[in-house]
Amino acid sequence: MNYPGGVKHKKSNNNININYANRGMNLEDELNITNKYYRDLDKAIIYKKPTPIKIAKANFISRKNVTITEAYFDMPSTTDYNGIYKGKYIDFEAKETTSNTSFPLSNIHKHQLLHLKRIYEHGGLSFIIVRFTHLNETYLLFEKDLDMFISNNNRKSIPLTYFKENGYLIKDKFNPRVDYLEVLDNIGGIDNEKKN
Amino acid sequence: MNYPGGVKHKKSNNNININYANRGMNLEDELNITNKYYRDLDKAIIYKKPTPIKIAKANFISRKNVTITEAYFDMPSTTDYNGIYKGKYIDFEAKETTSNTSFPLSNIHKHQLLHLKRIYEHGGLSFIIVRFTHLNETYLLFEKDLDMFISNNNRKSIPLTYFKENGYLIKDKFNPRVDYLEVLDNIGGIDNEKKN
Repeated sequence: MNYPGGVKHKKSNNNININYANRGMNLEDELNITNKYYRDLDKAIIYKKPTPIKIAKANFISRKNVTITEAYFDMPSTTDYNGIYKGKYIDFEAKETTSNTSFPLSNIHKHQLLHLKRIYEHGGLSFIIVRFTHLNETYLLFEKDLDMFISNNNRKSIPLTYFKENGYLIKDKFNPRVDYLEVLDNIGGIDNEKKN
Repeated sequence: MNYPGGVKHKKSNNNININYANRGMNLEDELNITNKYYRDLDKAIIYKKPTPIKIAKANFISRKNVTITEAYFDMPSTTDYNGIYKGKYIDFEAKETTSNTSFPLSNIHKHQLLHLKRIYEHGGLSFIIVRFTHLNETYLLFEKDLDMFISNNNRKSIPLTYFKENGYLIKDKFNPRVDYLEVLDNIGGIDNEKKN
Protein backbone atom coordinates (compact mmCIF):
# COMPACT_ATOMS: atom_id res chain seq x y z
CA MET A 1 0.00 0.00 0.00
CA ASN A 2 1.45 3.30 -1.06
CA TYR A 3 0.32 5.72 1.57
CA PRO A 4 2.19 8.91 0.85
CA GLY A 5 5.13 9.48 3.14
CA GLY A 6 4.11 6.75 5.54
CA VAL A 7 1.79 9.23 7.16
CA LYS A 8 -0.59 6.44 7.94
CA HIS A 9 1.40 4.70 10.64
CA LYS A 10 2.71 7.93 11.99
CA LYS A 11 -0.74 9.38 12.45
CA SER A 12 -2.21 6.39 14.22
CA ASN A 13 0.60 6.45 16.78
CA ASN A 14 0.26 10.13 17.57
CA ASN A 15 -0.43 11.08 21.12
CA ILE A 16 -4.09 11.73 21.69
CA ASN A 17 -5.12 15.12 22.91
CA ILE A 18 -8.38 14.25 24.58
CA ASN A 19 -10.95 16.99 24.69
CA TYR A 20 -13.24 16.13 27.53
CA ALA A 21 -15.89 18.54 26.28
CA ASN A 22 -16.94 15.85 23.82
CA ARG A 23 -17.81 13.32 26.48
CA GLY A 24 -21.44 12.47 26.91
CA MET A 25 -22.23 13.02 23.25
CA ASN A 26 -22.47 10.02 21.04
CA LEU A 27 -20.72 9.63 17.73
CA GLU A 28 -23.87 10.26 15.70
CA ASP A 29 -24.54 13.58 17.45
CA GLU A 30 -20.95 14.64 16.99
CA LEU A 31 -20.95 13.70 13.31
CA ASN A 32 -24.17 15.65 12.78
CA ILE A 33 -22.57 18.71 14.38
CA THR A 34 -19.42 18.15 12.35
CA ASN A 35 -21.34 17.88 9.08
CA LYS A 36 -23.29 21.01 9.90
CA TYR A 37 -19.98 22.77 10.59
CA TYR A 38 -18.68 21.63 7.20
CA ARG A 39 -21.83 22.83 5.48
CA ASP A 40 -21.83 26.19 7.29
CA LEU A 41 -18.26 26.71 6.10
CA ASP A 42 -19.24 25.44 2.65
CA LYS A 43 -16.41 22.91 2.93
CA ALA A 44 -18.48 19.83 2.16
CA ILE A 45 -22.14 18.94 1.69
CA ILE A 46 -22.58 15.77 3.70
CA TYR A 47 -25.73 14.64 5.53
CA LYS A 48 -26.91 11.73 7.58
CA LYS A 49 -29.75 9.96 5.84
CA PRO A 50 -33.04 9.75 7.72
CA THR A 51 -33.60 6.54 9.68
CA PRO A 52 -35.73 4.23 7.56
CA ILE A 53 -39.10 3.59 9.16
CA LYS A 54 -41.77 1.14 8.04
CA ILE A 55 -45.24 2.56 8.53
CA ALA A 56 -47.89 0.03 9.52
CA LYS A 57 -50.83 2.30 10.40
CA ALA A 58 -51.56 5.98 9.88
CA ASN A 59 -54.45 8.39 10.18
CA PHE A 60 -54.64 10.37 6.99
CA ILE A 61 -56.53 13.61 7.53
CA SER A 62 -54.96 15.55 4.69
CA ARG A 63 -51.75 15.40 2.70
CA LYS A 64 -50.06 17.63 5.24
CA ASN A 65 -51.79 16.22 8.27
CA VAL A 66 -50.90 12.58 8.76
CA THR A 67 -50.44 10.90 12.12
CA ILE A 68 -48.52 7.66 12.05
CA THR A 69 -49.91 5.42 14.78
CA GLU A 70 -47.89 2.25 14.24
CA ALA A 71 -44.43 2.01 12.75
CA TYR A 72 -41.18 0.10 13.09
CA PHE A 73 -37.52 0.73 12.40
CA ASP A 74 -36.59 -0.70 9.03
CA MET A 75 -33.28 -2.08 7.83
CA PRO A 76 -31.21 0.59 6.06
CA SER A 77 -30.45 -0.11 2.37
CA THR A 78 -27.21 1.76 2.42
CA THR A 79 -24.89 3.52 4.82
CA ASP A 80 -25.92 6.41 7.05
CA TYR A 81 -23.83 9.23 5.61
CA ASN A 82 -23.13 10.49 2.13
CA GLY A 83 -22.43 13.66 0.23
CA ILE A 84 -19.82 15.56 -1.70
CA TYR A 85 -16.38 16.91 -0.80
CA LYS A 86 -14.03 18.59 -3.28
CA GLY A 87 -16.20 17.27 -6.11
CA LYS A 88 -15.90 13.70 -4.87
CA TYR A 89 -18.70 11.39 -3.74
CA ILE A 90 -18.25 10.52 -0.05
CA ASP A 91 -19.98 7.58 1.65
CA PHE A 92 -19.50 6.14 5.10
CA GLU A 93 -20.96 4.29 8.03
CA ALA A 94 -20.23 5.24 11.64
CA LYS A 95 -20.34 2.91 14.63
CA GLU A 96 -19.44 2.87 18.28
CA THR A 97 -18.21 -0.04 20.30
CA THR A 98 -17.69 -0.41 24.04
CA SER A 99 -15.00 -3.03 23.45
CA ASN A 100 -11.42 -2.00 24.24
CA THR A 101 -9.86 -4.56 21.96
CA SER A 102 -11.88 -5.06 18.77
CA PHE A 103 -14.80 -3.91 16.65
CA PRO A 104 -17.46 -6.60 16.11
CA LEU A 105 -18.32 -6.84 12.41
CA SER A 106 -21.88 -7.76 13.35
CA ASN A 107 -22.35 -4.01 13.91
CA ILE A 108 -22.41 -3.49 10.15
CA HIS A 109 -24.87 -5.27 7.87
CA LYS A 110 -23.40 -7.33 5.05
CA HIS A 111 -25.27 -5.29 2.44
CA GLN A 112 -23.75 -2.15 3.91
CA LEU A 113 -20.26 -3.62 3.49
CA LEU A 114 -21.17 -4.49 -0.09
CA HIS A 115 -22.48 -0.96 -0.61
CA LEU A 116 -19.20 0.56 0.60
CA LYS A 117 -17.29 -1.73 -1.75
CA ARG A 118 -19.45 -0.79 -4.73
CA ILE A 119 -19.01 2.92 -3.99
CA TYR A 120 -15.25 2.43 -4.00
CA GLU A 121 -15.45 0.55 -7.29
CA HIS A 122 -17.50 3.40 -8.79
CA GLY A 123 -14.84 5.93 -7.90
CA GLY A 124 -16.28 7.23 -4.65
CA LEU A 125 -14.48 7.61 -1.36
CA SER A 126 -15.97 5.13 1.11
CA PHE A 127 -14.95 4.26 4.63
CA ILE A 128 -16.13 3.46 8.14
CA ILE A 129 -15.69 5.60 11.23
CA VAL A 130 -15.43 3.51 14.39
CA ARG A 131 -15.28 4.87 17.91
CA PHE A 132 -13.96 2.83 20.80
CA THR A 133 -16.00 4.71 23.37
CA HIS A 134 -14.15 3.56 26.51
CA LEU A 135 -10.81 4.49 24.97
CA ASN A 136 -12.27 7.66 23.46
CA GLU A 137 -10.48 6.83 20.21
CA THR A 138 -12.12 7.27 16.83
CA TYR A 139 -10.69 5.75 13.66
CA LEU A 140 -11.34 6.13 9.97
CA LEU A 141 -10.77 2.94 7.99
CA PHE A 142 -11.01 3.07 4.20
CA GLU A 143 -13.16 0.52 2.45
CA LYS A 144 -10.13 -0.97 0.74
CA ASP A 145 -8.51 -1.79 4.09
CA LEU A 146 -11.79 -2.95 5.57
CA ASP A 147 -12.29 -5.24 2.59
CA MET A 148 -8.71 -6.51 2.88
CA PHE A 149 -9.32 -7.50 6.50
CA ILE A 150 -12.58 -9.29 5.73
CA SER A 151 -11.12 -11.10 2.71
CA ASN A 152 -8.03 -12.32 4.56
CA ASN A 153 -9.50 -13.11 7.94
CA ASN A 154 -12.18 -15.41 9.14
CA ARG A 155 -12.70 -13.31 12.24
CA LYS A 156 -15.93 -11.79 13.43
CA SER A 157 -14.29 -8.64 14.71
CA ILE A 158 -11.53 -6.27 13.66
CA PRO A 159 -8.84 -5.88 16.35
CA LEU A 160 -8.02 -2.38 17.55
CA THR A 161 -4.45 -2.98 16.37
CA TYR A 162 -5.73 -3.29 12.79
CA PHE A 163 -7.30 0.17 13.09
CA LYS A 164 -4.07 1.52 14.56
CA GLU A 165 -1.99 0.05 11.74
CA ASN A 166 -4.32 0.50 8.78
CA GLY A 167 -6.74 3.20 9.81
CA TYR A 168 -6.38 6.82 10.75
CA LEU A 169 -6.95 8.23 14.18
CA ILE A 170 -9.38 11.14 14.03
CA LYS A 171 -8.13 13.73 16.49
CA ASP A 172 -10.50 14.75 19.23
CA LYS A 173 -11.24 18.43 18.70
CA PHE A 174 -13.65 21.02 19.92
CA ASN A 175 -14.79 22.26 16.53
CA PRO A 176 -15.42 20.39 14.37
CA ARG A 177 -15.91 17.55 16.79
CA VAL A 178 -14.96 14.66 14.50
CA ASP A 179 -12.83 16.23 11.80
CA TYR A 180 -12.72 13.25 9.45
CA LEU A 181 -12.17 15.42 6.38
CA GLU A 182 -8.81 16.39 7.87
CA VAL A 183 -7.80 12.75 7.47
CA LEU A 184 -8.70 12.85 3.78
CA ASP A 185 -6.79 16.12 3.38
CA ASN A 186 -3.70 14.90 5.23
CA ILE A 187 -3.24 11.71 3.26
CA GLY A 188 -4.07 13.49 0.02
CA GLY A 189 -6.88 10.97 -0.03
CA ILE A 190 -9.21 13.13 -1.98
CA ASP A 191 -6.82 13.03 -4.92
CA ASN A 192 -4.85 9.84 -4.37
CA GLU A 193 -7.20 7.48 -2.60
CA LYS A 194 -7.53 5.23 -5.67
CA LYS A 195 -3.79 4.56 -5.55
CA ASN A 196 -4.03 2.98 -2.09
CA MET B 1 -25.18 28.25 -23.09
CA ASN B 2 -22.89 25.86 -24.88
CA TYR B 3 -24.88 22.69 -25.09
CA PRO B 4 -22.85 20.39 -27.30
CA GLY B 5 -24.18 20.23 -30.85
CA GLY B 6 -27.47 21.84 -29.93
CA VAL B 7 -28.68 18.43 -28.82
CA LYS B 8 -30.75 20.07 -26.14
CA HIS B 9 -33.35 21.69 -28.35
CA LYS B 10 -33.38 18.77 -30.72
CA LYS B 11 -34.11 16.27 -27.97
CA SER B 12 -36.92 18.18 -26.36
CA ASN B 13 -38.71 18.41 -29.70
CA ASN B 14 -38.48 14.72 -30.45
CA ASN B 15 -41.67 12.81 -30.98
CA ILE B 16 -42.73 11.02 -27.85
CA ASN B 17 -43.04 7.27 -27.99
CA ILE B 18 -45.50 6.70 -25.17
CA ASN B 19 -45.31 3.36 -23.46
CA TYR B 20 -48.68 2.82 -21.88
CA ALA B 21 -47.34 0.07 -19.65
CA ASN B 22 -46.02 2.78 -17.33
CA ARG B 23 -49.39 4.26 -16.63
CA GLY B 24 -50.76 3.83 -13.15
CA MET B 25 -47.32 3.90 -11.57
CA ASN B 26 -46.18 7.10 -10.01
CA LEU B 27 -42.85 8.76 -10.69
CA GLU B 28 -41.37 7.70 -7.36
CA ASP B 29 -42.15 4.02 -7.97
CA GLU B 30 -40.72 4.23 -11.46
CA LEU B 31 -37.57 5.95 -10.25
CA ASN B 32 -37.10 3.31 -7.57
CA ILE B 33 -37.39 0.59 -10.20
CA THR B 34 -35.04 2.51 -12.49
CA ASN B 35 -32.45 2.96 -9.77
CA LYS B 36 -32.65 -0.73 -8.89
CA TYR B 37 -32.15 -1.53 -12.58
CA TYR B 38 -29.06 0.70 -12.65
CA ARG B 39 -27.70 -0.95 -9.51
CA ASP B 40 -28.41 -4.47 -10.77
CA LEU B 41 -26.45 -3.63 -13.94
CA ASP B 42 -23.79 -1.93 -11.81
CA LYS B 43 -24.26 1.18 -13.94
CA ALA B 44 -24.83 3.60 -11.07
CA ILE B 45 -25.36 3.44 -7.31
CA ILE B 46 -28.27 5.79 -6.69
CA TYR B 47 -30.90 5.47 -3.96
CA LYS B 48 -33.92 7.33 -2.73
CA LYS B 49 -33.35 8.51 0.81
CA PRO B 50 -35.79 7.28 3.45
CA THR B 51 -38.68 9.63 4.20
CA PRO B 52 -37.79 11.64 7.30
CA ILE B 53 -40.12 10.86 10.18
CA LYS B 54 -40.31 12.60 13.54
CA ILE B 55 -41.01 10.14 16.32
CA ALA B 56 -43.21 11.44 19.14
CA LYS B 57 -43.91 8.25 21.10
CA ALA B 58 -42.46 4.76 21.06
CA ASN B 59 -42.57 1.59 23.11
CA PHE B 60 -39.05 0.45 23.68
CA ILE B 61 -38.95 -3.24 24.55
CA SER B 62 -35.41 -3.92 23.39
CA ARG B 63 -32.98 -2.35 20.95
CA LYS B 64 -34.36 -4.50 18.17
CA ASN B 65 -37.95 -4.41 19.31
CA VAL B 66 -39.33 -0.90 19.19
CA THR B 67 -42.88 0.01 18.27
CA ILE B 68 -43.42 3.61 17.26
CA THR B 69 -46.91 4.63 18.37
CA GLU B 70 -46.96 8.28 17.34
CA ALA B 71 -44.98 9.88 14.56
CA TYR B 72 -45.24 12.55 11.88
CA PHE B 73 -43.71 13.23 8.50
CA ASP B 74 -40.81 15.61 8.86
CA MET B 75 -39.45 18.16 6.40
CA PRO B 76 -36.63 16.70 4.32
CA SER B 77 -33.25 18.43 4.75
CA THR B 78 -32.11 17.67 1.25
CA THR B 79 -33.38 16.16 -1.97
CA ASP B 80 -34.80 12.68 -2.26
CA TYR B 81 -32.22 11.01 -4.49
CA ASN B 82 -28.46 10.88 -4.52
CA GLY B 83 -25.61 8.59 -5.42
CA ILE B 84 -22.75 8.04 -7.80
CA TYR B 85 -22.53 7.62 -11.58
CA LYS B 86 -19.28 7.35 -13.51
CA GLY B 87 -17.43 8.57 -10.44
CA LYS B 88 -19.58 11.67 -10.19
CA TYR B 89 -21.86 12.73 -7.34
CA ILE B 90 -25.49 12.81 -8.52
CA ASP B 91 -28.28 14.61 -6.67
CA PHE B 92 -31.85 15.28 -7.69
CA GLU B 93 -35.42 15.89 -6.65
CA ALA B 94 -38.38 14.38 -8.51
CA LYS B 95 -41.89 15.81 -8.65
CA GLU B 96 -45.15 15.26 -10.45
CA THR B 97 -47.68 17.86 -11.45
CA THR B 98 -51.18 17.49 -12.83
CA SER B 99 -50.90 20.85 -14.59
CA ASN B 100 -50.64 20.77 -18.37
CA THR B 101 -48.97 24.15 -18.65
CA SER B 102 -46.53 24.75 -15.78
CA PHE B 103 -44.75 23.31 -12.76
CA PRO B 104 -45.55 25.12 -9.49
CA LEU B 105 -42.33 25.96 -7.68
CA SER B 106 -44.14 25.54 -4.35
CA ASN B 107 -43.63 21.79 -4.96
CA ILE B 108 -39.98 22.16 -4.03
CA HIS B 109 -38.85 23.61 -0.72
CA LYS B 110 -36.52 26.61 -0.87
CA HIS B 111 -33.85 24.79 1.08
CA GLN B 112 -34.00 21.97 -1.47
CA LEU B 113 -33.37 24.48 -4.27
CA LEU B 114 -30.45 25.84 -2.28
CA HIS B 115 -29.18 22.31 -1.73
CA LEU B 116 -29.23 21.59 -5.48
CA LYS B 117 -27.34 24.82 -6.13
CA ARG B 118 -24.70 24.02 -3.53
CA ILE B 119 -24.21 20.55 -5.00
CA TYR B 120 -23.62 22.11 -8.41
CA GLU B 121 -21.15 24.55 -6.92
CA HIS B 122 -19.30 21.67 -5.27
CA GLY B 123 -18.87 19.89 -8.59
CA GLY B 124 -21.78 17.50 -8.40
CA LEU B 125 -24.42 16.91 -11.03
CA SER B 126 -27.75 18.20 -9.71
CA PHE B 127 -31.12 18.49 -11.39
CA ILE B 128 -34.85 18.06 -11.01
CA ILE B 129 -37.03 15.50 -12.74
CA VAL B 130 -40.55 16.77 -13.34
CA ARG B 131 -43.41 14.74 -14.71
CA PHE B 132 -46.47 16.36 -16.24
CA THR B 133 -48.71 13.41 -15.44
CA HIS B 134 -51.64 14.28 -17.72
CA LEU B 135 -49.30 14.78 -20.65
CA ASN B 136 -47.20 11.76 -19.64
CA GLU B 137 -44.09 13.81 -20.28
CA THR B 138 -41.09 13.72 -17.95
CA TYR B 139 -38.31 16.28 -18.10
CA LEU B 140 -34.87 16.59 -16.61
CA LEU B 141 -33.86 20.18 -15.87
CA PHE B 142 -30.31 20.86 -14.68
CA GLU B 143 -29.85 23.00 -11.60
CA LYS B 144 -28.12 25.69 -13.65
CA ASP B 145 -31.18 26.15 -15.86
CA LEU B 146 -33.53 25.90 -12.89
CA ASP B 147 -31.52 28.55 -11.12
CA MET B 148 -31.48 30.75 -14.23
CA PHE B 149 -35.27 30.63 -14.39
CA ILE B 150 -35.71 31.50 -10.72
CA SER B 151 -33.14 34.31 -10.87
CA ASN B 152 -34.65 35.92 -13.97
CA ASN B 153 -38.35 35.43 -13.29
CA ASN B 154 -40.65 36.48 -10.55
CA ARG B 155 -43.03 33.65 -11.39
CA LYS B 156 -44.30 31.01 -9.01
CA SER B 157 -44.25 28.28 -11.64
CA ILE B 158 -42.04 27.16 -14.48
CA PRO B 159 -43.92 26.97 -17.80
CA LEU B 160 -43.84 23.68 -19.70
CA THR B 161 -42.27 25.57 -22.60
CA TYR B 162 -39.25 26.32 -20.40
CA PHE B 163 -38.79 22.59 -19.82
CA LYS B 164 -39.15 21.96 -23.55
CA GLU B 165 -36.56 24.59 -24.40
CA ASN B 166 -34.10 24.19 -21.54
CA GLY B 167 -34.70 20.71 -20.17
CA TYR B 168 -34.44 17.25 -21.62
CA LEU B 169 -37.34 14.98 -22.32
CA ILE B 170 -36.81 11.59 -20.68
CA LYS B 171 -38.09 9.00 -23.09
CA ASP B 172 -40.83 6.72 -21.84
CA LYS B 173 -39.36 3.21 -21.87
CA PHE B 174 -40.20 -0.18 -20.55
CA ASN B 175 -36.88 -0.89 -18.88
CA PRO B 176 -35.53 1.15 -17.28
CA ARG B 177 -38.73 3.09 -16.80
CA VAL B 178 -37.26 6.57 -16.41
CA ASP B 179 -33.87 6.38 -18.06
CA TYR B 180 -32.52 9.71 -16.85
CA LEU B 181 -28.90 8.58 -17.06
CA GLU B 182 -29.37 8.34 -20.82
CA VAL B 183 -29.90 12.10 -20.83
CA LEU B 184 -26.58 12.59 -19.02
CA ASP B 185 -24.88 10.23 -21.48
CA ASN B 186 -26.39 11.86 -24.56
CA ILE B 187 -25.41 15.40 -23.73
CA GLY B 188 -22.01 14.27 -22.50
CA GLY B 189 -23.23 15.77 -19.27
CA ILE B 190 -21.20 13.55 -17.09
CA ASP B 191 -18.00 15.00 -18.51
CA ASN B 192 -19.10 18.41 -19.76
CA GLU B 193 -21.87 19.51 -17.45
CA LYS B 194 -19.74 22.19 -15.83
CA LYS B 195 -19.36 23.88 -19.22
CA ASN B 196 -23.11 24.41 -19.53
